[in-house]
Amino acid sequence: MSKPLILVSNDDGIFSKGIASLVDFVKDLGEVVVIAPTLPQSGMGHAITIHEHIRLDKSKLLPGFEAYECSGTPVDCVKLAKHYVLKDRQPDLVLSGINHGTNSSVSVIYSGTMSAAMEGAMEGIPSIGFSLADYNHDADFEPCREFVRSIVASALHGKFPEHTAWNVNFPSSAKTGPYKGIKVCRQSHGRWKEEFINRKDPQGRDYFWLTGKFLNLDSGEDTDEFALSNGYISLVPCQYDLTHYTSLLAVENMLSHKV
Amino acid sequence: MSKPLILVSNDDGIFSKGIASLVDFVKDLGEVVVIAPTLPQSGMGHAITIHEHIRLDKSKLLPGFEAYECSGTPVDCVKLAKHYVLKDRQPDLVLSGINHGTNSSVSVIYSGTMSAAMEGAMEGIPSIGFSLADYNHDADFEPCREFVRSIVASALHGKFPEHTAWNVNFPSSAKTGPYKGIKVCRQSHGRWKEEFINRKDPQGRDYFWLTGKFLNLDSGEDTDEFALSNGYISLVPCQYDLTHYTSLLAVENMLSHKV
Repeated sequence: MSKPLILVSNDDGIFSKGIASLVDFVKDLGEVVVIAPTLPQSGMGHAITIHEHIRLDKSKLLPGFEAYECSGTPVDCVKLAKHYVLKDRQPDLVLSGINHGTNSSVSVIYSGTMSAAMEGAMEGIPSIGFSLADYNHDADFEPCREFVRSIVASALHGKFPEHTAWNVNFPSSAKTGPYKGIKVCRQSHGRWKEEFINRKDPQGRDYFWLTGKFLNLDSGEDTDEFALSNGYISLVPCQYDLTHYTSLLAVENMLSHKV
Repeated sequence: MSKPLILVSNDDGIFSKGIASLVDFVKDLGEVVVIAPTLPQSGMGHAITIHEHIRLDKSKLLPGFEAYECSGTPVDCVKLAKHYVLKDRQPDLVLSGINHGTNSSVSVIYSGTMSAAMEGAMEGIPSIGFSLADYNHDADFEPCREFVRSIVASALHGKFPEHTAWNVNFPSSAKTGPYKGIKVCRQSHGRWKEEFINRKDPQGRDYFWLTGKFLNLDSGEDTDEFALSNGYISLVPCQYDLTHYTSLLAVENMLSHKV
């Protein structure tokens, strides 16, 4: 029996420690092919490149692996993998990460890491995004190893729910101590409170930097935020059907031109 | 009583006919403030700008209105509006569009238009994205007028479901004839089949253009695709809680390191 084909991408860029760690953790669980952005693409969400051309080049940054670097977004990487590089070979799994920084709660919406995984799901491929609560370039991913391997093995050998991608977040073990286990959670309700830093360039013209602080607005013990702040790894199964089914009828009643 | 405050953005850029039409359609329903991208931002999904600074300038492109153009993404526009330009004034409504081209089915995920609306929803503001199935720069938005006004009036005066944004798509009336009405729908299941155009630059190095075709994989008569292909305007209430609740238990049973 041939080995499972595992496509790996990320949003921090192919040079990052997080993707090298992920590849190292899973390399014996399947045949690994990497297509990842040349430059950092954090916060790119589900962006695709349509007003610019895209470059794709073989990469030497992950010796021993079939690896490519792509000028586009994380979602571009998955599309190029599926529809150009791998052509008729369907990956058995798409992995994205390990992200330097968390993608819990609503951050999933902005996350390039999770968008690569969601794109995999949209292609009908079991897909997982991994993130660690440590923005450091030199973050220590080693404590994630056994859990990443266990989750990947479960995904490869179990019945992965269709049209979903898993959003897996690790708290910083340096802060919380050894991980207590994995909690399957719902996405916590929260939002980002932004503060724009307003500066003037040498010509006196305004420019802005986006910065912000996450506010968790949900005290549920079944949320990813609760799991993370209590030393657990969180796993949220995510869907890309955005329909808010419970308001369909109410909305129908609000409209005056309804059918 | 003061007029409702309506924030308008889009992803095609502030110069586009779609946003000028939208502003014209709703200008007497509230006080309109426009913050929209300087350049086209189609396909930007929920991207935010964090590796670059952002410019924001007063715009003269929509005379008679308080209007700004922003170098960033549609989501940046909404964040700047909420946290910088409008500061303590909470908009009563965020409108985005009218997009030149549809954002039905899974296109909602890639859409900058809908991501601006979703960002509004994440800020707790009733939000609506409008799109017309006509990519033409000079598309005729006039047949949308009465329906846009009616939907906006319903949103302003009804009880808008929390944490949701409405994805409203108009078929091309040139193709389907006069609109039959508005159908409240679920998001159709479908996907994009991509084809990358591979060219060589003058130095002989490969580059790619992303192109693709939408495949509808869902024959449900309650879907947005069904509504659009039958001459109706589709309205899908969308949520940003991505949790796939129905698989929580199944996923828990798949894991070996679970809690």
